Amino acid sequence: MLCLWPLSGQVQAIVASPVLPAPALLSAQDSDPTTLGWMQGFPPPPEKRLSVADGSFFTFPALRYSVVHMREFLPTVNVSRGITMSQLFPKAIDKAIAEIEFTPWHSHKTMTFADSLWHNYTDGIVVLHKGKLVYEDYFGALTPKNKHAAMSVTKSFTGTLAAMLVAEGALDDTKTVAEYVPELTDSAFGDATVRQVLDMTTGLKYSEDYADPDAEIWAYSTAGNPLPKPKEYQGPVGYFEYLQQVKKQGEHGEAFAYKTINSDALGWIISRVTGKSVAELLSEKIWQRLGMEQDAYYQVDELGIPFAGGGLSAGLRDMARFGELIRNQGRWKNKQIIPAAVIADIQQGADPEAFAKAGYNSLKGWSYRNMWWVTHNNNGAFAARGVHGQTIYIDPKAEMVLVRFASHPVASNSANDATSLPAYQAVADYLMTKD
Amino acid sequence: MLCLWPLSGQVQAIVASPVLPAPALLSAQDSDPTTLGWMQGFPPPPEKRLSVADGSFFTFPALRYSVVHMREFLPTVNVSRGITMSQLFPKAIDKAIAEIEFTPWHSHKTMTFADSLWHNYTDGIVVLHKGKLVYEDYFGALTPKNKHAAMSVTKSFTGTLAAMLVAEGALDDTKTVAEYVPELTDSAFGDATVRQVLDMTTGLKYSEDYADPDAEIWAYSTAGNPLPKPKEYQGPVGYFEYLQQVKKQGEHGEAFAYKTINSDALGWIISRVTGKSVAELLSEKIWQRLGMEQDAYYQVDELGIPFAGGGLSAGLRDMARFGELIRNQGRWKNKQIIPAAVIADIQQGADPEAFAKAGYNSLKGWSYRNMWWVTHNNNGAFAARGVHGQTIYIDPKAEMVLVRFASHPVASNSANDATSLPAYQAVADYLMTKD
Repeated sequence: MLCLWPLSGQVQAIVASPVLPAPALLSAQDSDPTTLGWMQGFPPPPEKRLSVADGSFFTFPALRYSVVHMREFLPTVNVSRGITMSQLFPKAIDKAIAEIEFTPWHSHKTMTFADSLWHNYTDGIVVLHKGKLVYEDYFGALTPKNKHAAMSVTKSFTGTLAAMLVAEGALDDTKTVAEYVPELTDSAFGDATVRQVLDMTTGLKYSEDYADPDAEIWAYSTAGNPLPKPKEYQGPVGYFEYLQQVKKQGEHGEAFAYKTINSDALGWIISRVTGKSVAELLSEKIWQRLGMEQDAYYQVDELGIPFAGGGLSAGLRDMARFGELIRNQGRWKNKQIIPAAVIADIQQGADPEAFAKAGYNSLKGWSYRNMWWVTHNNNGAFAARGVHGQTIYIDPKAEMVLVRFASHPVASNSANDATSLPAYQAVADYLMTKD
Repeated sequence: MLCLWPLSGQVQAIVASPVLPAPALLSAQDSDPTTLGWMQGFPPPPEKRLSVADGSFFTFPALRYSVVHMREFLPTVNVSRGITMSQLFPKAIDKAIAEIEFTPWHSHKTMTFADSLWHNYTDGIVVLHKGKLVYEDYFGALTPKNKHAAMSVTKSFTGTLAAMLVAEGALDDTKTVAEYVPELTDSAFGDATVRQVLDMTTGLKYSEDYADPDAEIWAYSTAGNPLPKPKEYQGPVGYFEYLQQVKKQGEHGEAFAYKTINSDALGWIISRVTGKSVAELLSEKIWQRLGMEQDAYYQVDELGIPFAGGGLSAGLRDMARFGELIRNQGRWKNKQIIPAAVIADIQQGADPEAFAKAGYNSLKGWSYRNMWWVTHNNNGAFAARGVHGQTIYIDPKAEMVLVRFASHPVASNSANDATSLPAYQAVADYLMTKD
């Protein structure tokens, strides 16, 4: 699930390395962005300045600052909460959760839930049980009043919006992409069905191997980068133009292959069907209807198109509201915000055999449906997941929603899953012993 | 009061021409940004694309779109409303206000208030009488749920924050700028007092004459532009570095001279005294305390410094809340948010003789205090003013606060004052006949 947030033309080598952080890396405590003073001072001293142009803003440890300040580096489009009243969660904080012990994968030593949060460079964590706030904590640069980059958790919003259109009959997931976006006819997407895009079983020649200078990720990054292109640049401008020249590799419908550009193509389909950007649609369908505390925002490309594959930033509690909406089968305060069929379809998941072909050794038996990760475990848990440790983890049986924002030095979640997924399970087990 | 929002390296000639729009210009109706379709479509067609890099986003009529979408073009920093409940205005809409007639300056024909709004390319207007909403309308791309560039209305926020620090004893306005910002010691600001900066009676070699390619505005624009500088660029980076090399011209304290860089210098002083950016301070002191409906934001320079001279965007009603706070001598719901002495000091104004030296022929008898324009008229009206027709106009005697956002094709307010200021007076006269 390696998916770098594709903007900078320069990416530090470590991002491409899905291994545990080397001991030389600063710990969460030692890499605290407030202590390190990024962009602090009037003006910030040269050694504390971060920039999109040179890529410095998204290298570790500076990225611990930037994940909470994307808007200060980039053009963005608002996802309005409207001007309605916020609806706060009832609180039932349970201090025992911090001390819950679990055994990380590949380990014999137990760890507490609170320790796992430091271990995984957590910036913010909220746990809801039966809709009540039972655990909440903030680290790094995150507070209850600001926002954090959701990275590829964004994809689950894109997928949910599209699945809503399918359930409402506005979008036919058996039709080809070309029927909705004629500009994609000659690209690899042209003869893929909307369903194949939604479940990422398209056959696309698109590599996110950062070690390969010829990998398509670089051209994609450049196309989507909102900074002005160099004069000599002849390539595609913006996400949509990039998508038009994606070539086919293999057949559609055979294997799950996690490729961010599916989400961007889905964003295009959504906008063609609704006449609205994903930012406008998310505001209208979700953000204005849940009593959100804060607006959210998307980074945009040079043409103002929101980055549907990974550009959302939002408040932690607002992400939890969305998770709770999903856990409640799309109902919120007696209103059906999302058709129940959409959530049922996500929970049912897709074909684990198609998923297995992608080779995620640590995610055995999982599948990917409507841009959600489905564990198929005993509790029927499913999740939105983004690089550097972002997640919305929903455990229906435990009636738990867990949201974590993080700034782990390693992009790939394979670097933190060993101390995250078993921790979530332990909290779920604990909550199931409660009323 | 010619003050272009200084970002683009290219400025259309008309901006520098403080005359009424030529007949060839599109009317407000014909230049409606929604009808013209700027940045609309997935993706927008080439002829509808706007860009900061080529300056197209801030030429008329496209600027009518951009004033409501600054954040989609530029990096910005949030001014948080917190996560408190919004407090809505009591409504007492009075439809008769639309039909109020007045005679524009230099004219023999009357005009209605409603007509004046079209004439002046109004994007949004709110009139409060005794704290009740008596008139509200939206045009162009503005709605109650989005935000508009306040242009130099921003300066009145900067001035108010600084005046609050003076009233609280944290800032001594008789001290020199150099005492607070040593980096400015060798610049023209070094031996100016904080008061001279607050009232713009500094003697600075700084021209905003857009017709002159050697005018300092160009170097200032380049320094503050958040886009990466060209490799060969050797000049100042960011607003603060620019200020350090401003040269003196004339003496401080002798004449009012409206120069945006005073507001930026004041922003620096504020941040040195408080350890906070103007965005943080505005959030803490004002935005989180008035039940604002929306967050606001500032555009920032390459170093993340908010543009204190003109970078604020906010919701129309939230601007009205601020205006109403000022009209109520800094009290809001029985809390003293701004020391009453600050408002009294603004209302008293500065020296009209010093003001007269700036040669504003149509603003006879006015003065400029704490970055507010003081009319010294019979009603004691005073205003925040920004190019292209932005204003917060406060008439204490009429117990009226009028806020207008606009996108007039001509930057200078001299192009719209003739149909604005007498219209505001007529509405005030009318409201004084009411309970």
